[in-house]
Amino acid sequence: MKNGLSIIVDVDGRTCPVIFSGWRRRLETVVAKKSRGVLVSNPAVFALHGRSLIRDILPKGWTVVPLMMGDGERYKNSRTVAAIHEHLLDLSINRDDLVIAFGGGVVGDTAGFAAATYKRGIGFLQIPTTLLAMMDAAIGAKVGINHPRGKNLIGTFYQPLGIAINPDWLGTLPEREMNAGIAELLKTGFLVSEAFLQAASSMPPRYDLAERRKWIALIEGAVLFKSHIVQRDPYDRGLRRVLNFGHTFAHAIEAAEGYRRYRHGEAVAAGMVAAIHLSFLAGHLSRKRHDAYLEYLLGPVARLAPLRKPTGAYMAPMRYDKKNAGPAPTFVLLKAVGRSIVSPAPAAADIRRAVEFMKRFVNSRGRL
Amino acid sequence: MKNGLSIIVDVDGRTCPVIFSGWRRRLETVVAKKSRGVLVSNPAVFALHGRSLIRDILPKGWTVVPLMMGDGERYKNSRTVAAIHEHLLDLSINRDDLVIAFGGGVVGDTAGFAAATYKRGIGFLQIPTTLLAMMDAAIGAKVGINHPRGKNLIGTFYQPLGIAINPDWLGTLPEREMNAGIAELLKTGFLVSEAFLQAASSMPPRYDLAERRKWIALIEGAVLFKSHIVQRDPYDRGLRRVLNFGHTFAHAIEAAEGYRRYRHGEAVAAGMVAAIHLSFLAGHLSRKRHDAYLEYLLGPVARLAPLRKPTGAYMAPMRYDKKNAGPAPTFVLLKAVGRSIVSPAPAAADIRRAVEFMKRFVNSRGRL
Repeated sequence: MKNGLSIIVDVDGRTCPVIFSGWRRRLETVVAKKSRGVLVSNPAVFALHGRSLIRDILPKGWTVVPLMMGDGERYKNSRTVAAIHEHLLDLSINRDDLVIAFGGGVVGDTAGFAAATYKRGIGFLQIPTTLLAMMDAAIGAKVGINHPRGKNLIGTFYQPLGIAINPDWLGTLPEREMNAGIAELLKTGFLVSEAFLQAASSMPPRYDLAERRKWIALIEGAVLFKSHIVQRDPYDRGLRRVLNFGHTFAHAIEAAEGYRRYRHGEAVAAGMVAAIHLSFLAGHLSRKRHDAYLEYLLGPVARLAPLRKPTGAYMAPMRYDKKNAGPAPTFVLLKAVGRSIVSPAPAAADIRRAVEFMKRFVNSRGRL
Repeated sequence: MKNGLSIIVDVDGRTCPVIFSGWRRRLETVVAKKSRGVLVSNPAVFALHGRSLIRDILPKGWTVVPLMMGDGERYKNSRTVAAIHEHLLDLSINRDDLVIAFGGGVVGDTAGFAAATYKRGIGFLQIPTTLLAMMDAAIGAKVGINHPRGKNLIGTFYQPLGIAINPDWLGTLPEREMNAGIAELLKTGFLVSEAFLQAASSMPPRYDLAERRKWIALIEGAVLFKSHIVQRDPYDRGLRRVLNFGHTFAHAIEAAEGYRRYRHGEAVAAGMVAAIHLSFLAGHLSRKRHDAYLEYLLGPVARLAPLRKPTGAYMAPMRYDKKNAGPAPTFVLLKAVGRSIVSPAPAAADIRRAVEFMKRFVNSRGRL
């Protein structure tokens, strides 16, 4: 980005530039001779930013046929993928053509999985429009869909040809979405540095053009950190697990609430409260750091709906039975900002206490 | 294979050994700590060779749950993949576990696609039981399923952890299947050497233990050649096209006959007749070589059902319309054995004459 350079994410020898400006010219280079594509989006995003996309981002002369999918996690399923495949077949799209995902994580994951599995994989561009997708979902080559039995159970790794990011589109993003994205920025901060944490926690949950540079710096920082991790562990065999800080609890909250009450980033905000408390209970974190770290989460937490379920309901999705031969859930714990450890099996009593603490903290909005 | 070594197929940095003996010990090494898997097969194969598989091939102590799918190309579809995914979820199979494909190309392609798309890819072993799967389908990391609109339209690239080949299982393979496999061996011969062609064309369409060494040498040779090509072009962008010698016509025959009348290898036998004649018409091949090369195909061709459709029916699937913006069908033509060229657009009249010649040749069983 500095000096017009873009960030390169490298997964298994296939590079993917992340482009923050000069999109049109750079995309032309990225996709070489491809000039025909199907644009997967949803009606809300396309109505708001479709014109800007065509005017500012997509190279002139490209033939792009839009295909709208439903808005929301419940459309990230095999039926939508089948509909995208039908559409690609209708247009005789082949390996010289493109699929372009234009929207949030749901659009990117679904369209990416359709591109990865159509004719053994065709060209794919990510053009994310939410803060979460810009800094997280679009980065790292994970694509996939939900199964009735769980989130992201069906999917694969598939590197896009490029990722184009226009931060100005965040100007229309609802506060809840911005808040969810800030929670994931804070997660990056806990894994990276106090400076990043401070910068992320100082941002309000709305985009202001006057703050453009700050937003770009934060998104860039998160993308750089994630691509650094992903390059060292493209297939999620070990190191990449640190990106799941707060996520074991977050997934349990989402499952307990039937994926309705909380956005993913909101659940991550709550999940980090539990992960920080568990780090303290497990003896990795001093009381002083524990308290200081929770301060950073006050902003996102203050905007959460209360956690209403009994503690057991949030425990259940994390429970495992040896007879299942499934692995124990792993928890990413903090020793300090920038120093995480992956803990395979904390004491069950500590996990319960962490969940109880999280409930009290969230439901009192941090005023314990 | 010589000196107990196995062939290594390398796709994009991920290696896959092809194991012809000492399976049990070598598979233990290949899959490291994995010891739990779902075995996808069909009832016919499993009844014939399931005991041998468990006794001779699979390491002791592995827990393997068999899952039977229907026998035949029409079961290579999204419904079967969904059923495999359900089964994997029922058993809480995760990334530390395995999917094992035990059967022909249909089983390998379907089970491989299910493994590639489950939880972003889990361990996968290919244990092919047909000649075609041993020398072709299991090699090269292509997995996928059919779509109502065409063969293999949905799929991806996914390298197995290993491929275990026991040639003795060919002893129960029907003559038609053996004949179809020999046609693909002859295809390899046309791309490699006269010696390979002669060896392949001298084999009868039945497996005899006394000929075990000859069969292994042919399968090995075909695997070595294919892995050589695949390593240079893992994602099928150019060089790999030479493997499609005879296949443009073969796919047209299969489409014209609704994928019922001919097995894939049978259609390839007929398709190579047309490709050799087109090579002659296009001026690449002398009359002498043309006639000599067709001799090699007499065996497989003599066992084909007649091509009954009018010439136009076989032309239609190859036709393309510029308005579709699809690419022209490419033809792999021969200048000599071992010297092929990819021709994008031969004259339509020559293609028609090649199809007419193929019909006459096949329907007269080579006695023109």
